[in-house]
Amino acid sequence: MASNASDHDTADARNTALAGDVDALAALLTPVLEALAAGARARGGPAPTGRPTELDASWRAAFTGPDDRSRSAPGAGIGAAAALSELVRTFAAGSVDPADPRCAAHLHCPPLAVAVAADAAASALNPSLDSWDQAPIGTSLEPAVVAELADLVGYPSTAGGVVTTGGSESNLLGLLLAREHARPGAVRHGLPAGRYRVFGSEVTHFSVHRAAGLLGFGEDAVTPVRTGRDHRMDPDALDDALSRTEHTPIAVVATAGTTDLGAIDPLPEIAEVARKHQVWLHVDAAYGGGALFSENLAPKLAGLRAADSVGLDLHKLGWQPVAAGVFLTRSATDLAALARRAEYLNPADDEDAGYTSLLGRSLRTTRRPDALKIAVTLRALGRAGLGELVDRCAALAEHAATSIGRQPALELYQPPNLTTVVFRFDGSDEVNARLRRALLAAGAAVVGRTEIDGRVWLKLTLLNPHATNADVDALLAAVVSAGTEELEAAR
Amino acid sequence: MASNASDHDTADARNTALAGDVDALAALLTPVLEALAAGARARGGPAPTGRPTELDASWRAAFTGPDDRSRSAPGAGIGAAAALSELVRTFAAGSVDPADPRCAAHLHCPPLAVAVAADAAASALNPSLDSWDQAPIGTSLEPAVVAELADLVGYPSTAGGVVTTGGSESNLLGLLLAREHARPGAVRHGLPAGRYRVFGSEVTHFSVHRAAGLLGFGEDAVTPVRTGRDHRMDPDALDDALSRTEHTPIAVVATAGTTDLGAIDPLPEIAEVARKHQVWLHVDAAYGGGALFSENLAPKLAGLRAADSVGLDLHKLGWQPVAAGVFLTRSATDLAALARRAEYLNPADDEDAGYTSLLGRSLRTTRRPDALKIAVTLRALGRAGLGELVDRCAALAEHAATSIGRQPALELYQPPNLTTVVFRFDGSDEVNARLRRALLAAGAAVVGRTEIDGRVWLKLTLLNPHATNADVDALLAAVVSAGTEELEAAR
Repeated sequence: MASNASDHDTADARNTALAGDVDALAALLTPVLEALAAGARARGGPAPTGRPTELDASWRAAFTGPDDRSRSAPGAGIGAAAALSELVRTFAAGSVDPADPRCAAHLHCPPLAVAVAADAAASALNPSLDSWDQAPIGTSLEPAVVAELADLVGYPSTAGGVVTTGGSESNLLGLLLAREHARPGAVRHGLPAGRYRVFGSEVTHFSVHRAAGLLGFGEDAVTPVRTGRDHRMDPDALDDALSRTEHTPIAVVATAGTTDLGAIDPLPEIAEVARKHQVWLHVDAAYGGGALFSENLAPKLAGLRAADSVGLDLHKLGWQPVAAGVFLTRSATDLAALARRAEYLNPADDEDAGYTSLLGRSLRTTRRPDALKIAVTLRALGRAGLGELVDRCAALAEHAATSIGRQPALELYQPPNLTTVVFRFDGSDEVNARLRRALLAAGAAVVGRTEIDGRVWLKLTLLNPHATNADVDALLAAVVSAGTEELEAAR
Repeated sequence: MASNASDHDTADARNTALAGDVDALAALLTPVLEALAAGARARGGPAPTGRPTELDASWRAAFTGPDDRSRSAPGAGIGAAAALSELVRTFAAGSVDPADPRCAAHLHCPPLAVAVAADAAASALNPSLDSWDQAPIGTSLEPAVVAELADLVGYPSTAGGVVTTGGSESNLLGLLLAREHARPGAVRHGLPAGRYRVFGSEVTHFSVHRAAGLLGFGEDAVTPVRTGRDHRMDPDALDDALSRTEHTPIAVVATAGTTDLGAIDPLPEIAEVARKHQVWLHVDAAYGGGALFSENLAPKLAGLRAADSVGLDLHKLGWQPVAAGVFLTRSATDLAALARRAEYLNPADDEDAGYTSLLGRSLRTTRRPDALKIAVTLRALGRAGLGELVDRCAALAEHAATSIGRQPALELYQPPNLTTVVFRFDGSDEVNARLRRALLAAGAAVVGRTEIDGRVWLKLTLLNPHATNADVDALLAAVVSAGTEELEAAR
């Protein structure tokens, strides 16, 4: 607890109170909750209404204090409660609401209240996982959560892992360990001269390219392997590509749940090819990994346990506030490439005395215990409870596909794999793009879009387990209505 | 707002309520606040009492459900309120409390209640900064916060930047942009064969080595430049090293605020040398950057604006909950190496229509708006208010140094630069190490340690603006007492 010096007045004490003062924190959460509600009322729907340039101008004005030079930081400040009321209300009004069933564009889940509440505790205590004496219990909790999720994946008890900021960091870690596996010592001594290749499907997530760029292979090193219309990699084509390459293969990256179709690569066959060529297999299961909670859907991920490393995002099918990524390796010893000794964090004699450290699990140093909200959610709902939420979303996607199939103005790309539905309105690419922007500008709906085979498609990413079939139908009706208006306007 | 389906019973509705339901969130924050208070009472001091192995065993048992295989996720779950009460209380009791003046080991600040409250709003709304339609106002807010902090650094209005997870990510981004500057196209086409060097002081933070390892140079590529006993890099030695190297220099990394001494490299002289050799200058101001808020201390950072890139951490001298790192570049165009087009996130026609995106600012994809808590804090306290907190902590460090100087049993390494004080108890390295562990195991105090010139030193990192000189004296008395006990035990 803070020992407030008595020589500061009450207003100052309130403004500079530390979160360790639970009463002060409670007093400041009240205006936050009021501002969240007021902001939602002001928004009045799933998204703010207006064109982005106008909105941007008004928002920037809201952040700018009267003193132009100092922008968001006017001289002496306006005090904690006033700043929270004003900025949180503005922020809520200007946000899209993932808890509104009409907000269904992205892998951008509405977080569970229980997870948000747990995350507030992590913020208030502010432990950092880079040393035991900044996070005693955090140092025990994260490995327990990692073990739980490794078990979910089907890994043995010798698995290892770490909580990450998401799929991008997990993919980077996967490629980093793969690089060290293929070129031992590269972390220490540098990447030897050579040309390297990473193999993935044609729809491998761009964060894999970014990771390859970062690690010195170059984004160009990510080589697309023939992929079907269903966005699944062809294992024979992978075998062929690995047999023919003149360059050094670093990794095969398979995807379990693409962002558009939710497509899951044929994992058992890909694992067999990777093993045959002795290449590291990383599976990007950022989206699809959540299906493991569902008894109905888990069989789609058969073969996942054969991967050398896996990334999961519980801020997708796990209903956590960002960030809640998890990176897992089948063997904890593979994390050795990340090992690190720092005399001010994990001196050897402290470690000998039992003061272990998670410093060597992550590329980050200061690190928030995102494991807490995951642990609380798992304890609150159990795997079965999360699985039920996954099933509800998958059922919504099935319903959406059926509804789309019944409407002549809409075209379904293909039946859903997980909880996304890709479709288009019967009109040009431009009409599809414009109708989506029109719905957004009207604050009426947030629908996704993507491009497949050179055409614009629309997408619903159904992550709200409390949405109903009627909500989905209303959303599709809004798409048809907006599309019809765009068609008429174009005449 | 969530539209709860009526066919689920009340308990289920409460357990799976979304944070968009403000009443449900409020109802679950109540047990969290109670559990934080109860956990703090159970702890009864700055740290949990006990040996780490015993503590670990008891904590792991707390996370393990009755069903051994399912660990933290017993079959059906125990419900949201129960899980929060139980795990948050356990977590609080097992954490060290950075808001306790006896907790003074690391750059591990006690967060302001106002910042924690603002962060809860970010969690509840759960925007993600990788596309406009997941974070409309977030897309406007982050650049405003970045501009505010760039102004603080003294950068022109053409500066750019991004909020990061902390100094490690900022250092990685700095070296990545430096690599692209020295070897244009490396991100896209791979790092050309060659031997590369990064120059920094002998106490450059290890995250720079890690970044060099990641980027393909190898950790060995970080070349230490002669550094004084005061841990400041010698600019003449840097000039010499850059003149003599046979390898390709990628960057000079200067430090503004080392973790131990808070040492600030001579920035104007280093900038001149870097300019002379046309090498990218990145300044790791993760710790020292906060001194910019203080009119008294800001002059120590003169020359910072000459850097090509800078990293600041507002979760250090900024009292934010983790994470609140900021990476800044003097020229926004240097961020081009991070540019990225993804058809499902920022298609060109959407951008033309004003739907801008921050996707190309970060290596992360899904990204929490950590800018919100920073904006709210700046608005609440102003730069001046934060500067006052910095000054209070610097005054505590001055007081600590004076007190240490008066005690024969303690030796001061040197007068403080920022808010850390490095000292040792008059005994062997082992005695110093043991006394620190003894204080920790007794739950009495959390004191830092480090190694300088092969000797163990103790460290206070004073980041609690509400701590008093008496608190500091009590902490030093506890060190002397524990040291005396260790000396006696060793006899």
